[in-house]
Amino acid sequence: MRKGEATRQRIVARTANLLNKQGYRSTPVSAIMEVAGLQKGGIYRHFDSRTELTLEAFWYAVARMRDRLATALEGHKSATDQLLALLDIVGNAPRDQAFGGGCPIMNLAIESDDADPKLRAAAREAMNGLIGIFERIIAEGMQQDEFSKKNARTLANSMVATLEGGMMLSKLYKDARYLEAIADELRQRVRSGFR
Amino acid sequence: MRKGEATRQRIVARTANLLNKQGYRSTPVSAIMEVAGLQKGGIYRHFDSRTELTLEAFWYAVARMRDRLATALEGHKSATDQLLALLDIVGNAPRDQAFGGGCPIMNLAIESDDADPKLRAAAREAMNGLIGIFERIIAEGMQQDEFSKKNARTLANSMVATLEGGMMLSKLYKDARYLEAIADELRQRVRSGFR
Repeated sequence: MRKGEATRQRIVARTANLLNKQGYRSTPVSAIMEVAGLQKGGIYRHFDSRTELTLEAFWYAVARMRDRLATALEGHKSATDQLLALLDIVGNAPRDQAFGGGCPIMNLAIESDDADPKLRAAAREAMNGLIGIFERIIAEGMQQDEFSKKNARTLANSMVATLEGGMMLSKLYKDARYLEAIADELRQRVRSGFR
Repeated sequence: MRKGEATRQRIVARTANLLNKQGYRSTPVSAIMEVAGLQKGGIYRHFDSRTELTLEAFWYAVARMRDRLATALEGHKSATDQLLALLDIVGNAPRDQAFGGGCPIMNLAIESDDADPKLRAAAREAMNGLIGIFERIIAEGMQQDEFSKKNARTLANSMVATLEGGMMLSKLYKDARYLEAIADELRQRVRSGFR
């Protein structure tokens, strides 16, 4: 790895945590300079614009979350077990560094939906990916007769919406039990095969 | 009403819409000056600080939403009918000007949870109020044997989390159907008495 590339990746990693906590749009460049340990010129030597850095930091946070979910799925064969494994990870998110600052997709969605089409497009793309993970497993479970045959996408939307809302409450109250109780409720729905 | 008071209220009303769309923390004062039609000095003649204006604008948006929900409850006696009336209002929120920019409580929660304790305290207080509306109705429905006897607060948390998540998806995709489908699912749970 060239030295410039290493510096670039270090800026992205440090900025990712900062922006997911302090806001993708509202964090001042001065705060980025501080966590990166660089002057403004040093940062913009590696990124064409604030938006480019914001997007790279966002995708870094999304990839970290997605890796956590992908790892959780390993070794689980049935759709039921796979969904339960996802719920274990997401239900424990308030205590998990990979979710520091909450779900980056929801955070960027809320900040960008009416305010920044470029950032919103990234949030949509990432949300499609997240919902898609749930949708594929649910559809597979329907094919295998683990789950009652409904619209897999609608069920996936609902699971993700419920988990994101639970995450928001746990983050707001700094109390992991909100999301845990919601994950428990979803576990029951999964175990009952969405009947 | 004194002239100063009328001006103050006009600033709050115009700022409320702006901040709920463009961000409670990330909106620059220049944008507030533009919607208020005032110079910076003209705004700060009425508010001690940006935080004071932000909080007043937030509570204005919350009151507008709460009025909408309170009006919806009028004339409905059973807990089931009351919850269904709330779901009609919230499920239609993407088409309702009273929810312009989405739910102000979720918006402020996401922006403030890790970033601003003063704003977060306001978001918590408003969220307590919103969840409390659902909780009281659910508890009443349990007393009247409309609903199965569970923890009313947990059910209220779950309903609000699911609706907020659905609102987030509808706002992100600019598609009212996400929230509508989620409201439909909750209607079924209410009609089945949370069994």
